[in-house]
Amino acid sequence: MEKIAVLGGGSWATALVKILSENKAAINWWLRNAEDVRHLQQYGHNPRYISGVKFDLNFVSPSNDIRETVKDANWVILAVPAAFVQQALSQLPQDAFQGKTLVSAIKGMIPGENVLITDFLEDHYGVPAEHQCVIAGPCHAEEVALEKQSYLTIGSHDIARAEQFCALLRNRYVKANPLDDIDGIEYCAVMKNIIALACGIAHGLNYGDNFQAVMVSNAMEEIETFLDAMMPLHRDLKGSAYLGDLLVTAYSQFSRNRTFGNMIGRGYTVKSAQVEMNMVAEGYYAVQSIHELNKRLKVEMPITTAVYNILYNGATPGAEIDALKEKFK
Amino acid sequence: MEKIAVLGGGSWATALVKILSENKAAINWWLRNAEDVRHLQQYGHNPRYISGVKFDLNFVSPSNDIRETVKDANWVILAVPAAFVQQALSQLPQDAFQGKTLVSAIKGMIPGENVLITDFLEDHYGVPAEHQCVIAGPCHAEEVALEKQSYLTIGSHDIARAEQFCALLRNRYVKANPLDDIDGIEYCAVMKNIIALACGIAHGLNYGDNFQAVMVSNAMEEIETFLDAMMPLHRDLKGSAYLGDLLVTAYSQFSRNRTFGNMIGRGYTVKSAQVEMNMVAEGYYAVQSIHELNKRLKVEMPITTAVYNILYNGATPGAEIDALKEKFK
Repeated sequence: MEKIAVLGGGSWATALVKILSENKAAINWWLRNAEDVRHLQQYGHNPRYISGVKFDLNFVSPSNDIRETVKDANWVILAVPAAFVQQALSQLPQDAFQGKTLVSAIKGMIPGENVLITDFLEDHYGVPAEHQCVIAGPCHAEEVALEKQSYLTIGSHDIARAEQFCALLRNRYVKANPLDDIDGIEYCAVMKNIIALACGIAHGLNYGDNFQAVMVSNAMEEIETFLDAMMPLHRDLKGSAYLGDLLVTAYSQFSRNRTFGNMIGRGYTVKSAQVEMNMVAEGYYAVQSIHELNKRLKVEMPITTAVYNILYNGATPGAEIDALKEKFK
Repeated sequence: MEKIAVLGGGSWATALVKILSENKAAINWWLRNAEDVRHLQQYGHNPRYISGVKFDLNFVSPSNDIRETVKDANWVILAVPAAFVQQALSQLPQDAFQGKTLVSAIKGMIPGENVLITDFLEDHYGVPAEHQCVIAGPCHAEEVALEKQSYLTIGSHDIARAEQFCALLRNRYVKANPLDDIDGIEYCAVMKNIIALACGIAHGLNYGDNFQAVMVSNAMEEIETFLDAMMPLHRDLKGSAYLGDLLVTAYSQFSRNRTFGNMIGRGYTVKSAQVEMNMVAEGYYAVQSIHELNKRLKVEMPITTAVYNILYNGATPGAEIDALKEKFK
């Protein structure tokens, strides 16, 4: 029997535990919050996210102890916010992941270091690239909870490993496909949060669906430009791991990045929007990382630049979107 | 001064008359319904569509007489439903369009003949391809009425002519760009209505946002496959004339095709959905035309085939979408 560790207590972690445990894999589930662990152990529900889902505690073992959670697992799924990865893993020894496959379900980069999660795991924990996978694809956790048909793409340099993980996910409402462009889908997942934030800003400024469609089309060009400069490869960005993932975020009512952007567009300051939301949207960090990386690449990234200017340089949302408007085609 | 004839009384025709007349072009506007013409002449509003728009009758001349409307115009814009083109133009002599530029704002094909509007105009009225333009781009008429920022793409084999027409459209809330892939954007505009219909069917069957994102991604592949077989050309389908146009329709609350599909998904028969909507969605005809054309091309078009089977062969929506589900990636 597969032994899987899931790290993280958010909605995406919760959805993944639901999918994997229903396939009768043994899940060690680490949540940071001790209260949540107790609630899960007692009632079989996560009190904070997609709380309607009932877990079978014969397969799911919630725990507060990250070392114990990881120890016997052959798969380790990372599903904490990118900004907390370093802190969460700091309790583990450097060889904690030896012989295991690491699967990143994180859609962000390590803030400050501007590296992908997979690169961070290789650099700091010696996990070789071919022992890693990334989960991508258009997938609201909320819809997984409702068992709505969803599609996941598992990226890995080791396609057989990706296929193995796909097999652990597949069920009556989840399809999973392997793909070798792990870096491409990981960067795309990071950038889509920036685009969703930009869509939110435009919406907050009262732009409509026509503009949003043009924004998303132009965003696809921007993502392609960046990926081609960063890691040239013939990839078809119309696939559901790229375009699909962007769509589900940019058009979503659930997206925290879009919501955050919307508040910025309506005139909230960055600080007050963060306080009001009681969280930090991934796109807030992502835009800084991508902006930093592009200092070396120097390719045209008008949307990323606009969002960066608004969030970090105090630029006026209206003026930045006005400038974008002129650049879009 | 440019003299423009606009043929059609629907929302898109009305939006185009708004844009063009605000740029102080003289517009002869043909509407089939005599009552509507009188209302426009008396009150300056179209009583049926985006009725909030007030027209300056110094620039706009509504009329019931299609011959008079077309006579002195150097630009003729066709904005009637594809199914009514033949009937509307039947009152005109065959040389009615000599020396004029024809601009199709129609997103459909001639039913039964399965030809594009531009091909029909060439075949039946001798309008050479280079005297024709097509209007594409993500653009709800309703948002034009609200003066929300919109983008149009004008396709023509004669790029200078397309640019001339762009100049007639551009204003503070409309950007326009010329493009030479007139056939590609015309076919794409036809196919997006089929996809919107499919999205509506899936929605009616209770599929969610995750599935919709995957449907749209797979639709982009299907459109590319068809266009490559029909008229190979290196085109970037991520552009706003292709992807943008699809998005605004597939994600729209305004889309009649999506609404029609939704009713089919909920269990209405084709007949009863049409009666209920009091109109025929363009996608209903489009799917038959594309299906017919593909009998020659024989490329894989799973979404088109599914919609065709549902609308014309009495196939069960649930079973067809189930089958699609297995094919999607």
